[in-house]
Amino acid sequence: MTSSSLLDRWSATRAHSLSIAARISAEDASAQSMPECSPMKWHLAHTTWFYETFILEAFQPGFQPFHPSFRVLFNSYYNGIGEQFARPQRGLLTRPDLGLVLEYRRVTDLHMRQLMQNAPALQLLDLVELGIQHEQQHQELMLTDILHLFHCNPLYPAMLPRPDGGPDVAPATARPAEWLEFDASLCEIGYMGNGFCFDNETPRHREFVEAFFISSRLVNNGEYLAFVEAGGYHNPALWLSEGWNWLRQQQIDRPLYWRHEGQWEEFSLHGFVPLDLVQPVSHLSFFEASAYAAWAGARLPTEAEWEFAAQKMPDMEQLYNNCWQWTASSYSAYPGYAVSDGAIGEYNGKFMANQYVLRGSSAFTPAQHARLSYRNFFPSATRWQRAGIRLALSTSGD
Amino acid sequence: MTSSSLLDRWSATRAHSLSIAARISAEDASAQSMPECSPMKWHLAHTTWFYETFILEAFQPGFQPFHPSFRVLFNSYYNGIGEQFARPQRGLLTRPDLGLVLEYRRVTDLHMRQLMQNAPALQLLDLVELGIQHEQQHQELMLTDILHLFHCNPLYPAMLPRPDGGPDVAPATARPAEWLEFDASLCEIGYMGNGFCFDNETPRHREFVEAFFISSRLVNNGEYLAFVEAGGYHNPALWLSEGWNWLRQQQIDRPLYWRHEGQWEEFSLHGFVPLDLVQPVSHLSFFEASAYAAWAGARLPTEAEWEFAAQKMPDMEQLYNNCWQWTASSYSAYPGYAVSDGAIGEYNGKFMANQYVLRGSSAFTPAQHARLSYRNFFPSATRWQRAGIRLALSTSGD
Amino acid sequence: MTSSSLLDRWSATRAHSLSIAARISAEDASAQSMPECSPMKWHLAHTTWFYETFILEAFQPGFQPFHPSFRVLFNSYYNGIGEQFARPQRGLLTRPDLGLVLEYRRVTDLHMRQLMQNAPALQLLDLVELGIQHEQQHQELMLTDILHLFHCNPLYPAMLPRPDGGPDVAPATARPAEWLEFDASLCEIGYMGNGFCFDNETPRHREFVEAFFISSRLVNNGEYLAFVEAGGYHNPALWLSEGWNWLRQQQIDRPLYWRHEGQWEEFSLHGFVPLDLVQPVSHLSFFEASAYAAWAGARLPTEAEWEFAAQKMPDMEQLYNNCWQWTASSYSAYPGYAVSDGAIGEYNGKFMANQYVLRGSSAFTPAQHARLSYRNFFPSATRWQRAGIRLALSTSGD
Amino acid sequence: MTSSSLLDRWSATRAHSLSIAARISAEDASAQSMPECSPMKWHLAHTTWFYETFILEAFQPGFQPFHPSFRVLFNSYYNGIGEQFARPQRGLLTRPDLGLVLEYRRVTDLHMRQLMQNAPALQLLDLVELGIQHEQQHQELMLTDILHLFHCNPLYPAMLPRPDGGPDVAPATARPAEWLEFDASLCEIGYMGNGFCFDNETPRHREFVEAFFISSRLVNNGEYLAFVEAGGYHNPALWLSEGWNWLRQQQIDRPLYWRHEGQWEEFSLHGFVPLDLVQPVSHLSFFEASAYAAWAGARLPTEAEWEFAAQKMPDMEQLYNNCWQWTASSYSAYPGYAVSDGAIGEYNGKFMANQYVLRGSSAFTPAQHARLSYRNFFPSATRWQRAGIRLALSTSGD
Repeated sequence: MTSSSLLDRWSATRAHSLSIAARISAEDASAQSMPECSPMKWHLAHTTWFYETFILEAFQPGFQPFHPSFRVLFNSYYNGIGEQFARPQRGLLTRPDLGLVLEYRRVTDLHMRQLMQNAPALQLLDLVELGIQHEQQHQELMLTDILHLFHCNPLYPAMLPRPDGGPDVAPATARPAEWLEFDASLCEIGYMGNGFCFDNETPRHREFVEAFFISSRLVNNGEYLAFVEAGGYHNPALWLSEGWNWLRQQQIDRPLYWRHEGQWEEFSLHGFVPLDLVQPVSHLSFFEASAYAAWAGARLPTEAEWEFAAQKMPDMEQLYNNCWQWTASSYSAYPGYAVSDGAIGEYNGKFMANQYVLRGSSAFTPAQHARLSYRNFFPSATRWQRAGIRLALSTSGD
Repeated sequence: MTSSSLLDRWSATRAHSLSIAARISAEDASAQSMPECSPMKWHLAHTTWFYETFILEAFQPGFQPFHPSFRVLFNSYYNGIGEQFARPQRGLLTRPDLGLVLEYRRVTDLHMRQLMQNAPALQLLDLVELGIQHEQQHQELMLTDILHLFHCNPLYPAMLPRPDGGPDVAPATARPAEWLEFDASLCEIGYMGNGFCFDNETPRHREFVEAFFISSRLVNNGEYLAFVEAGGYHNPALWLSEGWNWLRQQQIDRPLYWRHEGQWEEFSLHGFVPLDLVQPVSHLSFFEASAYAAWAGARLPTEAEWEFAAQKMPDMEQLYNNCWQWTASSYSAYPGYAVSDGAIGEYNGKFMANQYVLRGSSAFTPAQHARLSYRNFFPSATRWQRAGIRLALSTSGD
Repeated sequence: MTSSSLLDRWSATRAHSLSIAARISAEDASAQSMPECSPMKWHLAHTTWFYETFILEAFQPGFQPFHPSFRVLFNSYYNGIGEQFARPQRGLLTRPDLGLVLEYRRVTDLHMRQLMQNAPALQLLDLVELGIQHEQQHQELMLTDILHLFHCNPLYPAMLPRPDGGPDVAPATARPAEWLEFDASLCEIGYMGNGFCFDNETPRHREFVEAFFISSRLVNNGEYLAFVEAGGYHNPALWLSEGWNWLRQQQIDRPLYWRHEGQWEEFSLHGFVPLDLVQPVSHLSFFEASAYAAWAGARLPTEAEWEFAAQKMPDMEQLYNNCWQWTASSYSAYPGYAVSDGAIGEYNGKFMANQYVLRGSSAFTPAQHARLSYRNFFPSATRWQRAGIRLALSTSGD
Repeated sequence: MTSSSLLDRWSATRAHSLSIAARISAEDASAQSMPECSPMKWHLAHTTWFYETFILEAFQPGFQPFHPSFRVLFNSYYNGIGEQFARPQRGLLTRPDLGLVLEYRRVTDLHMRQLMQNAPALQLLDLVELGIQHEQQHQELMLTDILHLFHCNPLYPAMLPRPDGGPDVAPATARPAEWLEFDASLCEIGYMGNGFCFDNETPRHREFVEAFFISSRLVNNGEYLAFVEAGGYHNPALWLSEGWNWLRQQQIDRPLYWRHEGQWEEFSLHGFVPLDLVQPVSHLSFFEASAYAAWAGARLPTEAEWEFAAQKMPDMEQLYNNCWQWTASSYSAYPGYAVSDGAIGEYNGKFMANQYVLRGSSAFTPAQHARLSYRNFFPSATRWQRAGIRLALSTSGD
């Protein structure tokens, strides 16, 4: 990729973040609904901090920080950079106000643009690409987090206007799910190509998968509703032990954004809308996904199975752009995985414990951000992500 | 008091709340720094809710609520009114936005004004008076809470411009404290007069106080600093047992808003300012006040002692307008105290457990709000209130 | 009191502790059911530690500690003595075993006896008296704590054999409660006499009480059951705010030891027995006592009222030996109260915060331990103590 | 295996549990040091409950439970059997006392023996085998848990007499560790044979492992001490993010049972002994094992690598009987794994989330209980297990 097309993509990414933020108020952008979420203003500042800290500070002659405190305030988790402001308190940062954060973006973008226009080093271009990918991840979080914040408010605000009778993703057909069969194979997974990928997708390597079936589409709301109505949330035999304890402590008996007021409804960026039974069920935890799979006499696929199936059948339904798909695979290093040097090495590797891999991408993921080898990951009790279920089955057993 | 002068006072009170709020941004006004604090926007709405719920709903013909959800959203703790939005989550209410809350105030004020101009019933006037007093209490909280919020922010914003070399209260003299002596007496305490008082100040009744001394002024920063530097926070013999456990768990070794960066400084509405050694020490918990008193070979006064001394020597220094003064008295009912009927009866009585009475008033208290018989109260670990120490001593003993 | 009769009382006290412990196994004696309770073995050791630390260490020539670790292990809360073993973990001290603790008692008693037989100093005798009183307090806790432990066990063991149809306190008559009237008076409260009292009962001093009524007897189980069945635990208007939050968080809807299995039953040292409707209700928190009083249109007495009434009518029913009686008075220092020097000064004074005074004594209190001026105290949520209700009323008001 | 030799093994297993318990007192056997541990008395009862519930109840004609409450009291986690007594409160079960639990064992054994002597069904024999294996697992826990309990006691009791200058495992040589090399291979892992295995070891299946090195022996105390002394516990770059947060919250800076009193010492069943530098380091969490590996420029092996290496080099040093060895593999189902029907199906499958697999066996594991395909598993913060480190390395990378 030439640096000019990179500059275009970078500019478009920067503009896209602003276009998301433009839909909400400064007050909305400043609140944090739980420690796992961040205020949208914080996302806007942190994605800027990333360029300032990893690029401007390293490459700009005579670099001056925009504000001496921002290095700490908007550092997410990079111990190599230094202290971080306490994550659960990001909602208390009413200053800098949104206006100053937008100014921070403007000034940083100016410096970045100058740097990129002057025959930049390859290493810098790689960091710009990483910055774009990083900002795209935060664009998804902006939507995910604002949905959670609005759901905490009894007024149930909508970020987007109510659609003309339609959901916010492509209409799903009511086609029956089919079991797609795959023979036992020595497959190769991990990123292959010359484009960008995260370090956790490498190295490409061999994994052996025994014969398996995978479902042609995601589990939909109607199917999941049957599980709810069959008492799925009240039958310990279906649940992982930790999941069962979690469910009872949290008094959970349905997906996070469902409610039943005369009819079943689901909270969305359009506010509460009637539950669309043919759309994939979403915003489930790993525990709920596993319990549903047990109830359905199936299981979750491993990430090797998912990637292998997607290699073979790239047109498989709802692979991308609808819901992330929980896998049975704990997030861990591929054989031969090497963490990058320096603070940037904290991007992925240090999170490889007690999280589960999700594959595909969701309706909240920026379009250019999906990839066959992409490894998303979250703890097993995570519900506020747009995550659903694609079932799998071993040929014998299960 | 005629209803027209009441209307004037009511109007002035309403305007004063807006003038406080005008000094901060909508983002500032929406955040909540801890469960005990509330966002300034919430204070603005709740003080309006009070008029709407207790007056308009009862007295306005054809009453229509401004918004059907506000009855729950802005109910602080009145079970008699119904459900309340969870207190620790008030900072998540980015909607209604500040603009709508101001509109809520404008519309409610319009209705209130109409009602008051039309030969209102005495009962209504009493409720207006209560509403004024209630709003004044929240005006103090607005300042107290915003100070706490700003202190949580590493940028340490100031709500007020930096004064020309002066603190935000009247300059204190460095006069030595004197012990004022009072003989044993059967005194009378509690409200006496025809003006307004809260129900917890009644009935006026007799209490016997044995002979005692009380200090002519409050403990100042310089004196408290000596306690800090003498290791007061590290000597369990000075502390109540619960206070010692609290101090160690919270790792407390100085007043909430003090810091030492080359010199001792104190956080204020002007930001961090050098510690003024002759100003009263403030923002202390009951535990800290008690420990200091023990170190100084003295004790805290009871509320009967405080009120009796203030009756006898109304010009005693710093009785009002500087710092609330912790007393040794647990907050409880006066003999013969009767709770009002209905939800308004929840105003005071139900909090008479595990709180300590503070007397006087502070620099954050609206000027008209101080009163000889006034009983403020907070739990013993409370630090974010503007509370200090006036020492007392028994004639023999101690 | 001569030192020989003191020696007799001391011996009897030591023997009484053993006679309580003789009724349970070493396993029973080693467990701790919650942080507020202690294992019986710990009580046996701590009461011995008290003599060893405050008397033998000070007065015995050539003193050698029984075991070098016991100074820390069995120090309850005396910072002046040094470190303390973490209170919530006392149940983990399976060593020293019960046998060694009994040996610790035997050896310490031997030394104590020698010391007392040899013309002891007055100061020593005072400490022996304090040690006796201290051990008596722990004898009550032994019963209170073992009852709690056994209640945690689904086998519901009984420490005592099932009585022949009777409860473990004197049968209560079903006499109607009467309101005993007292005029407004300047009374004197606090210990008067030449015998032993705790420092918190001094100095005797004057308090003024406005006219009041006090009930001739305690509230009984039948009366309290009416409160339960009238929905008392579900009506927030009756409860202190903190009590209401506590009740909902803990999901409390009846006294700690009540259960309803076909009939109402109460857990006791005899195991579960049918609820005796004419016996005083017991094992209530201050919150429950206050809510009941509000429901009954009355209030709790202050400790001055209680003591004054008991002075005037010493034959009043159930003053002692049945249930401790919650008062409305927060535990605080009497005017002129002075803490003793040294570690022994930690006995009472440092607990004067956020606790409420109970008066009288209970069926678990050693007979010689009750006293008109006695001040027991516990936090407002305490339920495992044998505490009940004597109602009071102001002449006007309430 | 014939049923008579099974009977012999069963008898020996039952006797072995008693021989462990014989070394401690009834008090020791009744305490629980943390929720993850159980009192030894509980282990003795639960292993008996297992036979009573899964065998006697199903196969014994005219079955009568030993005690009606034991079905609940000693049910560990089988929802299919019904309610369970709250795990964190097992230490409160002073009744049944140890004597009654031993009687429970005696009576149950009598019934079991009768049943096994009368031409038992194959299904029953399978359950006896499972019961033996289950009891062996609890024998290891008995030692692990008593070690933890004794470590909580400042007297630091020893369960075993101090050895004559030797540790409680075979002396380790100070041979340097070597990297054993393995080529990339399609291997087979999982149980193969006709003996007993747990369901989680099945089905045997293929996994592909890329080329790797594995260490010829475990990391020893001397090597781990170098990590401690090099500041390993203070360098976030070495730690998984969750591990770093855990370490700081718990203030951990060394292995659980290490202390430094003049010299480095380690707590063991013999009490504190000098740290043996050539013995494998033990009682580490997964987080500590991972951090050490990062510091050493290596990584933990996957369970497939471990099992493959152990197949090829069964004489590899310290595979068994010293320390369990943390692997990088999250505990999950093998492809084609099927959970058994009924409550017995809760044995393993429901724990397959957020735990890591350990391989080998430890000095606390009964000798007959080790197996090439054995999968032990614990959460990543677990420290009280006897778990250590065998390093691995990818051929390229790392």
